[in-house]
Amino acid sequence: LAPVPHDEALRLAVEQDGFVWLGLHEPTEAELAGIAAVYGLHPLAVEDAVEAHQRPKLDSYDDSLFMVLKTARYVEHGALTATSEVVNTGEVMVFLGSHYVITVRHGDHGGLKDLRNSLEGQTDLLRLGPAAVLYAVSDLVVDHFVEVAEAVEDDVEELETSVFSTDRTDDTPRIYQLKRELMQLRRAVQPLEIPLSTLAERPNDLVPDAMRSYFRDVQDHALRVRDQVAGLDELLSNILQAALARISVSQNDDMRRISSYAGLIAAPTLIAGIYGMNFEHMPELSWRFGYPLALLLMAGLCYLLYRGFKRSGWL
Amino acid sequence: LAPVPHDEALRLAVEQDGFVWLGLHEPTEAELAGIAAVYGLHPLAVEDAVEAHQRPKLDSYDDSLFMVLKTARYVEHGALTATSEVVNTGEVMVFLGSHYVITVRHGDHGGLKDLRNSLEGQTDLLRLGPAAVLYAVSDLVVDHFVEVAEAVEDDVEELETSVFSTDRTDDTPRIYQLKRELMQLRRAVQPLEIPLSTLAERPNDLVPDAMRSYFRDVQDHALRVRDQVAGLDELLSNILQAALARISVSQNDDMRRISSYAGLIAAPTLIAGIYGMNFEHMPELSWRFGYPLALLLMAGLCYLLYRGFKRSGWL
Amino acid sequence: LAPVPHDEALRLAVEQDGFVWLGLHEPTEAELAGIAAVYGLHPLAVEDAVEAHQRPKLDSYDDSLFMVLKTARYVEHGALTATSEVVNTGEVMVFLGSHYVITVRHGDHGGLKDLRNSLEGQTDLLRLGPAAVLYAVSDLVVDHFVEVAEAVEDDVEELETSVFSTDRTDDTPRIYQLKRELMQLRRAVQPLEIPLSTLAERPNDLVPDAMRSYFRDVQDHALRVRDQVAGLDELLSNILQAALARISVSQNDDMRRISSYAGLIAAPTLIAGIYGMNFEHMPELSWRFGYPLALLLMAGLCYLLYRGFKRSGWL
Amino acid sequence: LAPVPHDEALRLAVEQDGFVWLGLHEPTEAELAGIAAVYGLHPLAVEDAVEAHQRPKLDSYDDSLFMVLKTARYVEHGALTATSEVVNTGEVMVFLGSHYVITVRHGDHGGLKDLRNSLEGQTDLLRLGPAAVLYAVSDLVVDHFVEVAEAVEDDVEELETSVFSTDRTDDTPRIYQLKRELMQLRRAVQPLEIPLSTLAERPNDLVPDAMRSYFRDVQDHALRVRDQVAGLDELLSNILQAALARISVSQNDDMRRISSYAGLIAAPTLIAGIYGMNFEHMPELSWRFGYPLALLLMAGLCYLLYRGFKRSGWL
Amino acid sequence: LAPVPHDEALRLAVEQDGFVWLGLHEPTEAELAGIAAVYGLHPLAVEDAVEAHQRPKLDSYDDSLFMVLKTARYVEHGALTATSEVVNTGEVMVFLGSHYVITVRHGDHGGLKDLRNSLEGQTDLLRLGPAAVLYAVSDLVVDHFVEVAEAVEDDVEELETSVFSTDRTDDTPRIYQLKRELMQLRRAVQPLEIPLSTLAERPNDLVPDAMRSYFRDVQDHALRVRDQVAGLDELLSNILQAALARISVSQNDDMRRISSYAGLIAAPTLIAGIYGMNFEHMPELSWRFGYPLALLLMAGLCYLLYRGFKRSGWL
Repeated sequence: LAPVPHDEALRLAVEQDGFVWLGLHEPTEAELAGIAAVYGLHPLAVEDAVEAHQRPKLDSYDDSLFMVLKTARYVEHGALTATSEVVNTGEVMVFLGSHYVITVRHGDHGGLKDLRNSLEGQTDLLRLGPAAVLYAVSDLVVDHFVEVAEAVEDDVEELETSVFSTDRTDDTPRIYQLKRELMQLRRAVQPLEIPLSTLAERPNDLVPDAMRSYFRDVQDHALRVRDQVAGLDELLSNILQAALARISVSQNDDMRRISSYAGLIAAPTLIAGIYGMNFEHMPELSWRFGYPLALLLMAGLCYLLYRGFKRSGWL
Repeated sequence: LAPVPHDEALRLAVEQDGFVWLGLHEPTEAELAGIAAVYGLHPLAVEDAVEAHQRPKLDSYDDSLFMVLKTARYVEHGALTATSEVVNTGEVMVFLGSHYVITVRHGDHGGLKDLRNSLEGQTDLLRLGPAAVLYAVSDLVVDHFVEVAEAVEDDVEELETSVFSTDRTDDTPRIYQLKRELMQLRRAVQPLEIPLSTLAERPNDLVPDAMRSYFRDVQDHALRVRDQVAGLDELLSNILQAALARISVSQNDDMRRISSYAGLIAAPTLIAGIYGMNFEHMPELSWRFGYPLALLLMAGLCYLLYRGFKRSGWL
Repeated sequence: LAPVPHDEALRLAVEQDGFVWLGLHEPTEAELAGIAAVYGLHPLAVEDAVEAHQRPKLDSYDDSLFMVLKTARYVEHGALTATSEVVNTGEVMVFLGSHYVITVRHGDHGGLKDLRNSLEGQTDLLRLGPAAVLYAVSDLVVDHFVEVAEAVEDDVEELETSVFSTDRTDDTPRIYQLKRELMQLRRAVQPLEIPLSTLAERPNDLVPDAMRSYFRDVQDHALRVRDQVAGLDELLSNILQAALARISVSQNDDMRRISSYAGLIAAPTLIAGIYGMNFEHMPELSWRFGYPLALLLMAGLCYLLYRGFKRSGWL
Repeated sequence: LAPVPHDEALRLAVEQDGFVWLGLHEPTEAELAGIAAVYGLHPLAVEDAVEAHQRPKLDSYDDSLFMVLKTARYVEHGALTATSEVVNTGEVMVFLGSHYVITVRHGDHGGLKDLRNSLEGQTDLLRLGPAAVLYAVSDLVVDHFVEVAEAVEDDVEELETSVFSTDRTDDTPRIYQLKRELMQLRRAVQPLEIPLSTLAERPNDLVPDAMRSYFRDVQDHALRVRDQVAGLDELLSNILQAALARISVSQNDDMRRISSYAGLIAAPTLIAGIYGMNFEHMPELSWRFGYPLALLLMAGLCYLLYRGFKRSGWL
Repeated sequence: LAPVPHDEALRLAVEQDGFVWLGLHEPTEAELAGIAAVYGLHPLAVEDAVEAHQRPKLDSYDDSLFMVLKTARYVEHGALTATSEVVNTGEVMVFLGSHYVITVRHGDHGGLKDLRNSLEGQTDLLRLGPAAVLYAVSDLVVDHFVEVAEAVEDDVEELETSVFSTDRTDDTPRIYQLKRELMQLRRAVQPLEIPLSTLAERPNDLVPDAMRSYFRDVQDHALRVRDQVAGLDELLSNILQAALARISVSQNDDMRRISSYAGLIAAPTLIAGIYGMNFEHMPELSWRFGYPLALLLMAGLCYLLYRGFKRSGWL
């Protein structure tokens, strides 16, 4: 990766009206400085390309474009827990000039490596110049968004089933966790809307007119994911509200059952209290079967109360 | 459906300044590829037309339009339950050129088949060219939205009646279900706003000026449905809040009743305790009618408490 | 109302540069078809004019305007209940051409009949052509909105007083009902904003420039009502939240009182239990005033507890 | 205030290229009619100027402007209660022509009277024509908004302190009241945004270019108040939620304490019950110190339970 | 700081096509008046520069710009409490002319002092004129926003951990406090969006075209902070809801445990009551091991109930 080959490569590309495609993974400031000098990259763009944690955006300089995309990857996990990592994000930056395209990757996002191989077969597309690579990158990134959104949708459904099942589970921490993870996807998807519509709609020297409908296609997909993410977020809010309500309802149910049981005991206790009184004249006390009758009375009363409580839905 | 007839048909249509109308149901990629070659359809549009689950949109290419519509159908169900399917969605894609119109259907949506028969009678409309078919399709789709929204409105009213009735029912799972189903209708209706206003307002070679007020009419209906759906969603949120509040209120009512009953028992139990004490000098114990008087006292106390609790609204 | 007079009337109006004003109440399709033929009304507009339940809108055709307005009427009712009808809506459609204005009424809305008499006096206004009638109609409709909004404001205040009073009333069903009724008013007012601003701001052959400030005036009023309705809706949400909170608070108050009462009874019951024990050596039992002292102890304990509970705010 | 002087004054103003400044307080329709005739005011504006309760707005007629502003005044009150009036609103209307400015006041709003005196000193400003008066009026009105917002902020802080203090107070009615009063301020501030930006940004014959930055300055202040009001409203919502939550928490605390106390009593009651049993062979009953030991057992049990409950945070 | 040197400095700057950079800290009205006279600053801007508590904004006058920025500083605190100050704000105003830049600081915000030293090294940037200083100031201000937002994020995480831990803590006052502090940051960040986009996008004599991408870079960072702040606010709302729900759930848990314990005691109390009855014929009473058997029965019953309650999750 010495600066000379870059020099040479770029000269060749200009001569033959082709383009250089350079892929970097988390370059150091020094590495990128050398490359920037050869390709004449804008210092602000270079600075952004070294740091990770940029917001998706499209900057256009005099004779080049600089685009930042956030990538998303679904992290396979067993059952969703309150600490499951669900969405991992990385970044891809693209420098686009008339005879070069430089992609810089930060973080882990499968698939971008294979892009080159798959693109090299599509000569029709590559003939449209370096913008074709920008299209291919953004298409791949948005396709990953679609996959992530669909995988998250499965997690949402799992939560939904658990919340509305009759099992008593406290799903709220898991729902909060999924909301947090979904927020990451939203932050990757939402800010991409304006850059993509700019590429699809505004004339630009670096993006041939024939490429514009390709970017519009990517934007369509991005909008679909955005809607899906918004829908999922709303669903999660609904599920959360439902989960909280269910917990409260089931706690109240428990209290009602416990209180009903205590109320059930109170009646025979009163009977026992009555026959424990020390009045001299209490005829029942001397009956032969006074005691068993009293026990029967208690049992009968309990049974009647039990049925009454049952009918009222208290037990 | 061999490619040659297509070829021939299109040639005839161009010669006679008429148009070919082709209707496909879930075509395979291969089927559509043949047709695309004859009619010169754009590859990105063809790709979208094979896959289902597209977002409603309008793409305009050099000499053709491609429109995606989501259709909605109300699923008849008995009483609404927590798992009732209420809204079914499908898709219709329309390719529109100067001498052809191709409709591609995905999923199940009654009525589109009969469209051809009913349109063939309206020669005035058909004379306006293939855009008339696009109008007829979108009109039919939006009319179905109207029907679905009205049917859902009935479901909402049923829920409302149930929530505000004095019967104790847990309607929350049903309300969540209807909210979810309504979200599907909203996803079909909302994104149609911009495509329809584009057709109604922006001049376009493929849509004669005389057709524009037709599309505006469709848009009026679509806006009405959108408002209706938003209103229904808000109503459902209100009903949900009411249902949750009612459940909580009625659970608290139960607890109050149970506690009041237990409190009622506590008073005579105290009396019984008092006359169970073993003091040597308790004159009442040797009274002839001590025991019945004690029982009377207990009953009287219970009655007084009962009336007091009743007056306080506790029982 | 035979078609010939229409014909004749329109001819006269054109000759004398005046205009025909035709008022219809829920016409049948056939009636309107005859009129449409004479005046050359657009078929889509005619279709909309026959059906009720249109969304307020303004359609402009080549040489005519078609406006739909929703009217609102306040329904006098006794005390507001959970089923009170508060807002009744109807519709007025207006066809406007250079020499005619046709108003079509659906549903019941007082006052529109008298409009003609009152307008016939204002020759200055009528001289501005048929648009003056459109102005008068929209002005009257919006004036009714103002009246309805003010009457609803009284209902809201009544609810507010009831919710924040110390009486225990469950106002939630009434609040929901008023929210629902208010939503109807909102649906009549909100969509009128764009049609009115179009009439006030965009040059139009059928609306003389001098009329534009009149429509702006109507729009000012419509905006004021819209703000008022939004404010009322927010107030109702606040009141609802307050009502739900009050119910919950008062239910908890009840529970606390009942439990405190039960707790109060528990202490003397323990005393009674203690003196009901069968130990051989319990000196108090043989005291001359043991029994009255025990009763006194119970009463004293109750009194102390009562004061303690009172001080804690539990009773 | 006879029409002739107006006449004369206006003639003089036109001759000397000065302007007439006329201030009215709640004029009758007749009074204003005379003035309107002299100055040629638009009938719709005159109508608005007679009635109070207009929405803030700016209407521009051929050769005049008509602006409506809502004024706000902070009502000093002792401690904030559920019925405290906090914000009082009035109205100021301004007619602006090339040689006159007419201000009409409705309701009570201190300070506008002194405006004239203070303005008469600022000849630099007055030299810019009648628009300077419009600026001075709107500047004063918005300055009052700032004062009101700051005073309301103090009330909000007082509520906040009360809610988060450990004292038990039901602050919810007071919070609702402040929300209602704040809504009045919002209705005065918010609709002023567009009129002020129109005056600051759109060229207008009646507003010299040099005045535009003055109106922009007023708008800056108005925007700041708007933000402040929105922030206060959000704070009040947060405080309200906190207050409701605190009430619920403290009610639950009470219930827990009462139930714990009752639970505490239950244990010795059981002991008493046990030694009240009538078994022939209960050795403890004949122990010399059986009775004091039983009492000790009860007390010890109570103490242990009390410590356990205390440790669990139940008491 | 006498007026003469200013005069002289400005003359020199104009001659040599350089610029004067003047830094003031909370100047008095008199100090600023002198400076304003020399540099020809607009009186409205000068007025704003004396007062603190301005809203971030950009005013453009004939030949100068005036920008107000709010600065934010993170206040180090130990553990977050309900009264922790977290975000401190100050203000920086910048007057920008063709040959001068004047910065006015209000309140405490570290780092701005060092700006001069660090800028003096960057001659490339300074060569672009006084706008370079405006860029450097806004860049620094926004960089501080980023730092504050990240520090607040740590506080949010600490709260999150505390809320979702199994420890029982009432975190709601701390969450409210952080929400309030975050609102301050939002008020500093949000209104900066439009001024920065104006500097980045609209051509302006005082801002060389080459500087525009610098301002765009600052705006990118500002947008990122804005998104981050919005995300944190949403997270805090979620955490607050979770905290409230957890408190309610744990209070209900306590009640259930207390009630279960009381219910547990009720059963043996009934047994004791039964054997305390005074029937003449109760065979168990004369059994040799009646008493221990009864105690065993009580213990056994308690154990069974305890297991039952445990299984139901009540204890």
